[in-house]
Formats: sequence, structure tokens, C-alpha cells
Amino acid sequence: MKPIRLFLTDVDGCMTDGSMYYSANGDELKRFCVYDGMGIVRLRQQGVRCGILTSEQTDIVLNRARKLRLDYLYMGVGRVLEKENVLRYDAEDYKPKTLPFRTKLDACRELCEELGISLDEVCYLGDDINDLDLLQAVGTAACPANAIAEVKKLPGILHLTHSGGNGAVRELCDRLLEAIRTAPSGQFIP
Amino acid sequence: MKPIRLFLTDVDGCMTDGSMYYSANGDELKRFCVYDGMGIVRLRQQGVRCGILTSEQTDIVLNRARKLRLDYLYMGVGRVLEKENVLRYDAEDYKPKTLPFRTKLDACRELCEELGISLDEVCYLGDDINDLDLLQAVGTAACPANAIAEVKKLPGILHLTHSGGNGAVRELCDRLLEAIRTAPSGQFIP
Amino acid sequence: MKPIRLFLTDVDGCMTDGSMYYSANGDELKRFCVYDGMGIVRLRQQGVRCGILTSEQTDIVLNRARKLRLDYLYMGVGRVLEKENVLRYDAEDYKPKTLPFRTKLDACRELCEELGISLDEVCYLGDDINDLDLLQAVGTAACPANAIAEVKKLPGILHLTHSGGNGAVRELCDRLLEAIRTAPSGQFIP
Amino acid sequence: MKPIRLFLTDVDGCMTDGSMYYSANGDELKRFCVYDGMGIVRLRQQGVRCGILTSEQTDIVLNRARKLRLDYLYMGVGRVLEKENVLRYDAEDYKPKTLPFRTKLDACRELCEELGISLDEVCYLGDDINDLDLLQAVGTAACPANAIAEVKKLPGILHLTHSGGNGAVRELCDRLLEAIRTAPSGQFIP
Repeated sequence: MKPIRLFLTDVDGCMTDGSMYYSANGDELKRFCVYDGMGIVRLRQQGVRCGILTSEQTDIVLNRARKLRLDYLYMGVGRVLEKENVLRYDAEDYKPKTLPFRTKLDACRELCEELGISLDEVCYLGDDINDLDLLQAVGTAACPANAIAEVKKLPGILHLTHSGGNGAVRELCDRLLEAIRTAPSGQFIP
Repeated sequence: MKPIRLFLTDVDGCMTDGSMYYSANGDELKRFCVYDGMGIVRLRQQGVRCGILTSEQTDIVLNRARKLRLDYLYMGVGRVLEKENVLRYDAEDYKPKTLPFRTKLDACRELCEELGISLDEVCYLGDDINDLDLLQAVGTAACPANAIAEVKKLPGILHLTHSGGNGAVRELCDRLLEAIRTAPSGQFIP
Repeated sequence: MKPIRLFLTDVDGCMTDGSMYYSANGDELKRFCVYDGMGIVRLRQQGVRCGILTSEQTDIVLNRARKLRLDYLYMGVGRVLEKENVLRYDAEDYKPKTLPFRTKLDACRELCEELGISLDEVCYLGDDINDLDLLQAVGTAACPANAIAEVKKLPGILHLTHSGGNGAVRELCDRLLEAIRTAPSGQFIP
Repeated sequence: MKPIRLFLTDVDGCMTDGSMYYSANGDELKRFCVYDGMGIVRLRQQGVRCGILTSEQTDIVLNRARKLRLDYLYMGVGRVLEKENVLRYDAEDYKPKTLPFRTKLDACRELCEELGISLDEVCYLGDDINDLDLLQAVGTAACPANAIAEVKKLPGILHLTHSGGNGAVRELCDRLLEAIRTAPSGQFIP
């Protein structure tokens, strides 16, 4: 495992079990996992910046990102269907900025430049085909137990034992925290 | 697997795990699966028309159909209980048209005539007894892992390894996409 | 299996998986199963009257009972905690009548008298300790796979392979329907 | 198992399966288990006081505590993230009192003093790292099947076979009730 300065994750199937609840009155829900929250909080306490890249655009994710005080949130990125703008939110105010790029890799590249880090210092958790480009580009790629076959067979990808929405993010955070804890001083400074 | 020009699916137990959430305030929810959405989007990109046939009449399904930009939605079709009208929605406006017929097979026949295709070019995913007539009539019949016994033992039906609401639709879409990809040119043109 | 003229079931843990969803805005939800609905509809078509006995008092159950057109609904019956009145709803109008009795057995006895049938002609599905009195009194007692130990070890109780909210009611209905179908004429007339 | 006069439990991962549902309209839900309710009711009938210690501050938990008529509810206790006040609710009115302390152990100590009992007479159910201090201090510590590794390996902790939100609380209550039932008179008086 390489030194990590930025931890990014997809939402559906990674922070959730992939279920999407639709209500007759027009509401929509996603199911997150309390264990993931504790992992992200501790990772941020170690100086690792944390964020979300999702193709969805919904206040569900915005509310969850706020609750976890995530540093970055990109919504509408890596969409397969339509060509809408990407929205970026930062922790300081969680107000949307509209961005032109489309793929998750584009979004991550821009963020790395801004932070002065390389893609090699990024850990990304993804589970489906619109995550493939970014998973192949980052230094540490991981997937939950429920990832689809194309993702699971990427060379070198870390296979988590937990599935999305059931502790996958927590498991990955704990692994990163353990790597930080046991690394020789100076060699793993997030 | 035969060439497919039209992909139809039931909702409860196929696009969902069969659970129906009722709220004290009168709302109702169903649980869909993000993976299914990606499968349907890609199938439509290959020119296969996609639709839903459900005995329920609820905005839950209408909202999900809109989100996935499904070509057709029939609600109230194949009801066991009461004799209400069937509502048909098309992707262009998603406005309901009232139809006289009752069974899923009737609905599918009408749609095939309109599209100038045969029942043999239809793939249908169903899981319960009110799906039996259509499953026996289409060229490609499939059922999720959770289908009831009467459906599972239909001769020639494709048994998916995933259950409804947990990737059954995605698995079927991926199989159809693979069949399209590997078929000799001209022989599998959806 | 004995001839059945009345099918009664508990809600939580039998028609649901025992989960109760609470929302921050004060709403509450239960998770039902579409397969159960189809079983009850068919049982009613065979002339078996169907109803619910639950210790809860919530519109969630009332809405579900209406959707399934159940003949009877008793709410607040068999409560362990407080001594509130029992409410009875009948299919003709689903308006509550207040009743004095407390236990599920009392409620069932009153209904049997009204219908002119014996407790021996009742099938009851229950899963927890407040179902014990009625389970021991009816002709056909059944429990879902998730029932607690005290219920499971009742002598002669039918152990369903499905759990509550995941097809237990459907499995029981299908067994009753099969018994009706295969019984010598006149010997199993619900 | 030691005599218990006070039963306390964490919420997320203990009374729930750790899932947190976020809605697009801003609502939030947790999933509780009907079996737990029956266990707590019976434990309270035996004179054991029951309460909740959670790091969350949400009406979801308040509503559930009221439904179960819990004696005590502490919210915002053991937070990892921010330094907010702890709110304590008592069964008599369920109105919040603001408290200065931070950890779950602090809260439990205060309550023990008030009740004139020792930490040794407390049973606590916890599943994550912010439960560690209290689990190590009480007379009877227990964890659900889904507890994280650091909790599971605490010396002497009782490993429940059920997971949180799926009967863990009920299993623990039933064990306590059995201990009360079989203890020599005078030796196990909650």
C-alpha cells in the first residue's frame, strides 16, 4: 500500500449497498453505514483529505457528505446517460460550483493538481464500469465485495471483504490507518 | 439466446427484492438496485427498447421508469385482485393512456404489433404466477433467483443467479449485451 | 393439516421481517412482502376469510390491510406494555370499533363465534411470546423461520422455511391452497 | 453473569444494523427490531432500569426511546467528531437536560451515582471504538455479532450470536431474564 494523501469513494454500491428507495410521494432514499462514518472521521484526523465522486445529483449525498464533513463532493461525474454539468462542493461552505469535465478521472486530476499531489497518492474505491478509468489511474485502487466482474479483475486492485454499505469504506479506512500507523516515520505522511 | 429487440421486466421481485415499505403517514416505498440502472442504460444504447409491465399502479414505478428513461411502462396489467384499467406510459411524455386489456401477454402482444416484431424477439423477466402467461410466450424468458416454484420450473426459462433488486436485471442485461457483442454481424441486431 | 375457514396472522416478524423504521420527521415504516399479498388474494378467492391480529396500533398496518382487502384487522391486541383498547376493523368500511378484550385468543374466540366456526378451523401464524396463547388454541399453528425459541418448540406447530417479510405468509397460503386442492371433495371446504 | 440493575445499550449497530437512511427531502431513518422491544419491556417489568447511550442527536432515537418507555436516554455522548453538549432525557417527561461530560463512561458513572449502584451492576451493549471505555468498566459487557474487531477481542466480553437490529438486544435481555429467573433468591435482585 502506497502513501495516501487523498481518499475518494463512489457512493452507490460503495457507501451504500446499491439500493435506491423510491417513494410514492416523490422522495428518494439511500442506505449508508454508520461504521463507514467512524472510519472517515479517523482518516481525516490523520490528515488524509476525503471526498466523494458520484454520477448521481441528489441532496441525499450532499446531506451525507455534510454529516461526515467530507472535504470534497463531486456530483454528476462519470454519468453514462445524459450530458449534464458536474457540481463540486467543498467543505468550507458546501455550495455548488459548476464544472465542465465529465469523467471521474478528469475530476480527480483537477483535484490532484490543486492539492499539488500525484494520482499515485490517491486511494479510490469504486464498484462499476464508470469507475474503471479512475481505478486504473490511482496509486491505490479498491473495490467492495459486491463490485461487478470488470472491476474485480483489474490488475492489482484491492478486494475488500466487506460489501458496500456494510462496512467496505470502514474496512478500507482501517487498512489505511494501519498502514499510516506502522509505516516508518516520514515514509507515510498523508 | 435469441436476438432481442424488446426487453421487458416485472417490477416487484425482479427490479426490487419484493419488499414494499408502508409508512404511517401514508407514503409507500420500493427498493431498487443501482446496478440494474446501468445495465438498462447500456442495453438501450445498443438499440434494444426497454420497458416495464407491473400489476401495481404507483408513482414509485413511474418515477423509477422516468429516471431510467424506459421506453414503455404498463401499470395495472396482470392484476389478480380487481378489474381496473391498465395505464400505458411512453418515454416521449410519460403521460398515461388508458387501455382495455388485462393480462401481461395481451399488453406485450399489442406492443409487438406496434413495433413490427414477434414475441420471439422479446426477453421478459418475471417471478410470480401472473407472469406465467407472458414467460411462456416470449422468445427469451428469465427469472430471478427468488422466483416462485411455478415460474422456476417453466421449460427453457433462464435461471439468473442474482435475485430481484440485487442485480437480477443487470445480470440479464449483461448477458444480452454479451450475446449482442459476440453474435455474427447481422444475426443479432436488436 | 385441518380444514381452514379463517386465516389469521401477526404482523411484525410474520408479515414483516421484524424491522421497524423510525424517521427523524416522526414517520414510521414497516417492510412487507409482495409475495404474501398474492398468497392472501388467492386464499380469499377460495373462500377462506383472512385477517390480522397485531399489538401495534398504526396506520401502516391499516393501509396494508386495505391494500390486501383483508376481512378483519385487530390492532392493539396482545399488548405486553400498556392497557389500551383494542380496535377492530372490518373489510366493509375499515372503520374502527373499540373492543374490551386484551389477548389474541380472546379476539379470535369472539370472531369464531361470530362466524359460527370453531378454533379448530383457524390457522394462525405467530412468532413471539404474545402469540403463544392463540397458537396453542387454534387447529393449525405455524411460525416463520425467525420465530423465537418459545414459539418454535410448541408441540405440533408448523415450521415454515421462509422468514417473516420474506415469503412466510405466502408459503403458508400456498400450503393451505394445496391442501384445499388435493382434499377429497366436501372434506376441505373453507 | 453478575446481578444487573441497569441495562444500557448503544443505538447504531446494536439496536440497529448500522444502516442510516438519508432521504432527498432531508429526512433520515434508522431500522430497529421488534424483538428488541419485547425484551426491553420484560426486563423493565423485572425492575431493571433500561437506557440508551448514543453519539447521535436525532429525534429518531428519541421517538424509539419513548415508544419503548426507556428510563434514560443520553444523546451526543461519546462523539468522535465535534465537541457538542450531551443531552439527557428521562422517562418522566423526555425533556432534554444539557450535560457537560463527553464520554460514555462519564455518563454511566453519573447515572450510577444517582441510582446508588456500582458500575459492576451495569450491563452495556456496544459495538464500536467509542464504546470501548464503557465496555471495559461495566460488570457485564456484551457485543453484537457485527461488532468491530477491537470490541470483539475485549477480555471477558459476551459475544451475542445475533447482530444489531436483528435481535441482539433481545438475545441479551433474554439472557439477563434467564439469569434473574434461575438465580438463588436474594442473589440476583435487579
